[in-house]
Amino acid sequence: MYPKSLETLIECFKILPGVGTKSAQRYALLMLEKSDEEIQMFAQALIDAKNNIKPCKICGNYTEGDICDICSDDTRDSSTICVVQSFKDVIAMEKTQEYHGRYHVLNGVISSVKGIMPQDLNIDGLLKRLDGIKEIIIATSPTLEGETTAMYLANILKDKNVKVTRIAHGLQMGSHVDYVDELSLIKAMENRKEM
Amino acid sequence: MYPKSLETLIECFKILPGVGTKSAQRYALLMLEKSDEEIQMFAQALIDAKNNIKPCKICGNYTEGDICDICSDDTRDSSTICVVQSFKDVIAMEKTQEYHGRYHVLNGVISSVKGIMPQDLNIDGLLKRLDGIKEIIIATSPTLEGETTAMYLANILKDKNVKVTRIAHGLQMGSHVDYVDELSLIKAMENRKEM
Repeated sequence: MYPKSLETLIECFKILPGVGTKSAQRYALLMLEKSDEEIQMFAQALIDAKNNIKPCKICGNYTEGDICDICSDDTRDSSTICVVQSFKDVIAMEKTQEYHGRYHVLNGVISSVKGIMPQDLNIDGLLKRLDGIKEIIIATSPTLEGETTAMYLANILKDKNVKVTRIAHGLQMGSHVDYVDELSLIKAMENRKEM
Repeated sequence: MYPKSLETLIECFKILPGVGTKSAQRYALLMLEKSDEEIQMFAQALIDAKNNIKPCKICGNYTEGDICDICSDDTRDSSTICVVQSFKDVIAMEKTQEYHGRYHVLNGVISSVKGIMPQDLNIDGLLKRLDGIKEIIIATSPTLEGETTAMYLANILKDKNVKVTRIAHGLQMGSHVDYVDELSLIKAMENRKEM
């Protein structure tokens, strides 16, 4: 029903997460109304991002050069490494503006369901970075896979003469005790602090 | 916070309707996980759609050639023209598979608010097509602007020796009388038919 190039573009938009046929059609039709320059810029941006963005050779964070901005920033505390699952977690942490150490991006978590084993993760890279490190904060998500990965890392790091910590489990700010799941409540009680 | 090429790509995704910063970030990050081929295809699809899709020289419908598939289809009734606001309305009509005439895409409606005047619409093109036409069905939307445009067209077509009709106003299928707005109910009563 649509001209062929439009049909192709609709199919392309459908690869975006949560975008179905209706939205893809809407996006594609809107593109026809944009100027040649805007479309050229969009197409170039796709190719540039794909070509230029690579994992940092030290920490695995996305970067345009060999070494990411965080690893090459001498003002940051190089004796602390925060281990996260993905690049998105680095962004989330950086937004808090409270953490001033370095990162290490695992690029996933151990998952028997998805067949992701420790050797599929960027763990070797972490072990090579231990020189001069005082603390490793494991900041994988508090999910089954995240916890498994945290325990695995704590285990292989235990005789490496480095302090290994885990981000706290508890109630999220703004949550209501009566709506919180049992496990979170148990963790919150266990980890209670004197006021 | 993001590498520059990624930031650029996020900005590009934000031109899509209803896509805010969060979704744009999600889309852009997903693109990095796609293969080079997929990205190349997406970029090419954008450029191809923009370059290849043009308005049909007869009716204004989107097409890849000079004349659209509907105008060049000899099996369709060439004595009836359905006048619509946009290409999307052609698609909606074609989906019903009930209309077998030709179309004419106005490319908008008269709107004093948006400053769209009759001369900004594809009306001249319609007047040039009247030879051999028996009926013109005005299928602009039943909005203030759509109605204004319909009345304008009916007026300039009244001495052209062609039957001018307007799509019916009434209750939509599946709607409930107690929820329908007053104007629609008045129109539905006015246009009542003997059973």
